[in-house]
Amino acid sequence: MGWLNRDVISALDFNREDLVTLFNEAREMEKYARSRLNILEGKIMATAFFEPSTRTRLSFEAAMIRLGGHVLGFGSVEASSMAKGESLGDTIRMLDSYSDIIVIRHSLEGAAKYAAEIATVPVINAGDGTQNHPTQAMLDAYTIWREFERIDGLTIGVLGDLRYARVVVSLIQLLSNFNVKLRLISPELLRPRRELIDFMNSRGMSYSMHSNLSEVLSELDVLYVVRIQRERFPDPVEYERVRGSFRVTPETLAGARDTLIVLHPLPRVDEVDHRLDSTKYARYFRQSALGIPLRMALLKLILKGE
Amino acid sequence: MGWLNRDVISALDFNREDLVTLFNEAREMEKYARSRLNILEGKIMATAFFEPSTRTRLSFEAAMIRLGGHVLGFGSVEASSMAKGESLGDTIRMLDSYSDIIVIRHSLEGAAKYAAEIATVPVINAGDGTQNHPTQAMLDAYTIWREFERIDGLTIGVLGDLRYARVVVSLIQLLSNFNVKLRLISPELLRPRRELIDFMNSRGMSYSMHSNLSEVLSELDVLYVVRIQRERFPDPVEYERVRGSFRVTPETLAGARDTLIVLHPLPRVDEVDHRLDSTKYARYFRQSALGIPLRMALLKLILKGE
Amino acid sequence: MGWLNRDVISALDFNREDLVTLFNEAREMEKYARSRLNILEGKIMATAFFEPSTRTRLSFEAAMIRLGGHVLGFGSVEASSMAKGESLGDTIRMLDSYSDIIVIRHSLEGAAKYAAEIATVPVINAGDGTQNHPTQAMLDAYTIWREFERIDGLTIGVLGDLRYARVVVSLIQLLSNFNVKLRLISPELLRPRRELIDFMNSRGMSYSMHSNLSEVLSELDVLYVVRIQRERFPDPVEYERVRGSFRVTPETLAGARDTLIVLHPLPRVDEVDHRLDSTKYARYFRQSALGIPLRMALLKLILKGE
Repeated sequence: MGWLNRDVISALDFNREDLVTLFNEAREMEKYARSRLNILEGKIMATAFFEPSTRTRLSFEAAMIRLGGHVLGFGSVEASSMAKGESLGDTIRMLDSYSDIIVIRHSLEGAAKYAAEIATVPVINAGDGTQNHPTQAMLDAYTIWREFERIDGLTIGVLGDLRYARVVVSLIQLLSNFNVKLRLISPELLRPRRELIDFMNSRGMSYSMHSNLSEVLSELDVLYVVRIQRERFPDPVEYERVRGSFRVTPETLAGARDTLIVLHPLPRVDEVDHRLDSTKYARYFRQSALGIPLRMALLKLILKGE
Repeated sequence: MGWLNRDVISALDFNREDLVTLFNEAREMEKYARSRLNILEGKIMATAFFEPSTRTRLSFEAAMIRLGGHVLGFGSVEASSMAKGESLGDTIRMLDSYSDIIVIRHSLEGAAKYAAEIATVPVINAGDGTQNHPTQAMLDAYTIWREFERIDGLTIGVLGDLRYARVVVSLIQLLSNFNVKLRLISPELLRPRRELIDFMNSRGMSYSMHSNLSEVLSELDVLYVVRIQRERFPDPVEYERVRGSFRVTPETLAGARDTLIVLHPLPRVDEVDHRLDSTKYARYFRQSALGIPLRMALLKLILKGE
Repeated sequence: MGWLNRDVISALDFNREDLVTLFNEAREMEKYARSRLNILEGKIMATAFFEPSTRTRLSFEAAMIRLGGHVLGFGSVEASSMAKGESLGDTIRMLDSYSDIIVIRHSLEGAAKYAAEIATVPVINAGDGTQNHPTQAMLDAYTIWREFERIDGLTIGVLGDLRYARVVVSLIQLLSNFNVKLRLISPELLRPRRELIDFMNSRGMSYSMHSNLSEVLSELDVLYVVRIQRERFPDPVEYERVRGSFRVTPETLAGARDTLIVLHPLPRVDEVDHRLDSTKYARYFRQSALGIPLRMALLKLILKGE
């Protein structure tokens, strides 16, 4: 199954070959991420953001513009006024007739899949529900691949909210295509869901679960941090305690490998200390910047083929 | 009077010849509604939406982009912050110096006309007050023309709120250029205003008014449905009763001609049952999609001429 | 120091030679302000508006589009949702990797300077804090230069809130590069700050302060009006009194030179009477329109050089 006209709904839909094709294309696109490649001239990308997301939305827009294409759409504010009446299906049918590709973000699980069933043009899931954010996961995996020139053989720690952070599920699904060791570090309350554990088992992934970064720090090649949100904790005191012990600082990284890289999907609040920015470990800004070539590659593969 | 540099303020300003020119141009534009025709390269369309309207705004934007042009402007949110101070005239003067054509939506009757008096560039009314939405009416008439290859001789039912739905007035004004029979179906409270009845009489239009769709269903070629809004009814119980009896469903269409088409300007809430979508009658999605070529034709005729 | 890749943070950073280069370039750009000059094809301008500003934002957007470039970004609504969490630095780093130039507006003093320190691409201050709005001041000075073919030798009145209106400081800083007489007219409460007076003294500028326009009207070549905001006055009665005596009307201009021009950065509320619009004095609409060629010149000089 090639990339042309393909929907991007779940990380599960992509195998190792798909990803290698994508990563090679993204590497090629890095040449143009600061200039312009006029291959999508006249194509329109519709952004249907029912939830706010400045970062993901703007990186898709920048990618489309760098490829010579055009953007229209709406953000969460217009969406909330629309939400009073029109069904998602009717909205998607409208965008389907106005554009060549639809990028959707929605708070409801399955919204992107439903949109793809209705639309005749390709649909990209820019995050829906709490379990899917495939293009962020592609970007994350691509960053690792660019840093190490491989993914196989790496030990990857994922730290923070492993239960509700939508990118975690997508990232682990993607990484199942590679031979990695996962170290899953979270408060008890935010351990991965049963479904994700079943998935890792069914794919024979190597993983272990931990309550403290210090237990595994010295073996990590990658530390992927996600935010812990206040609203997950009934007790604010408990939240403050947990948040404190899951912050990543220069001090908590004492004992890490010299070659450790720290990633974060951004935006961050304070779960990664700003003092880390100037250390050798910080790669989250590069990761963010790679969002442009990665999404250029996605748009190019889907709209023009390989 | 040709189309070049013309304002589009009221449906009354357009005669049969204007409309035929527009429809023929729109039909030509259908070829490019999914690709690109670079005839407005470098032209800027300003969207001044003082009221929200995702659908109308996006279809104008898509049309402009398909023609090679560019878009800037603001939506209702920015407008509401502007509304604290600046006069409409000053805002229009600003847009006039920033763009080549202005598309305006406003809650006040006459806002578009006032804008056109101030601006040196052409102004298009994308809906103002409760009596004018000429480009929606053009799109509606174009859809009928495309479906039947003519408008003359058709019997057209208009069902719902015939008093406050701005598109109804514009549509009937446009249809006065053709030889049609109108069947106006509405609750007592939402019958057409005196001015509209006077207009139909003065043009010698053939029309009749009804309280039930069933009275006229079997003779209809077109059924045009508009929403009945809750806020029109002082009594919520009365609203629920009326709404129920003016919903269009597969059942209420029993006895219709095989060739009946159902139109709706969208968005709909539940006045057209979703089960109708897959029937032979439903044309509202095609109608919505034709908004692109119709608005491409408008922009082309106004900015480049015939 | 040339213009290429330069940040525009404070009016103080620009000397007479810089301004003459800018004005000459803007004059050249007037030829293209209604058409298109494809010299920034493929370049992306990011607009980071943390405070609302329809006029400034749209004029930058129109300028970029007229030069063949592209725009992405966010307005104050998205910004307010972002503000809950992400630091300004992280937001700027994101835009830095998505664009070729960043235009920022922010309520905090120094925000633009901070952004410029972080970004690798040029940053333009579209207004921050209460003391800086350099591109508006450039536009204002350019309008004077275009009207009189010079700035030296003119007597320029500045009337209204001279304490909190951010453009006043920037304008006086720019005018210090020319040989002008300043007449500063304001209520006691809104006289210029100590720092601005010290600045004028240090540059040996000729200025005087007044409480009534009538004291200086007959000698003015230019009358620059800025709004007096209600929130500056603890006492609403005092505000109404002051506002009344600082409104500019055809009557208050009795006794002015025939060649007097009245400028205003817009938007205005009622501090310049609408009846003035049709008099020979009004130049604020031309001033607004010149925002396009002036900002085209800025973008061209910074992104392409002289």
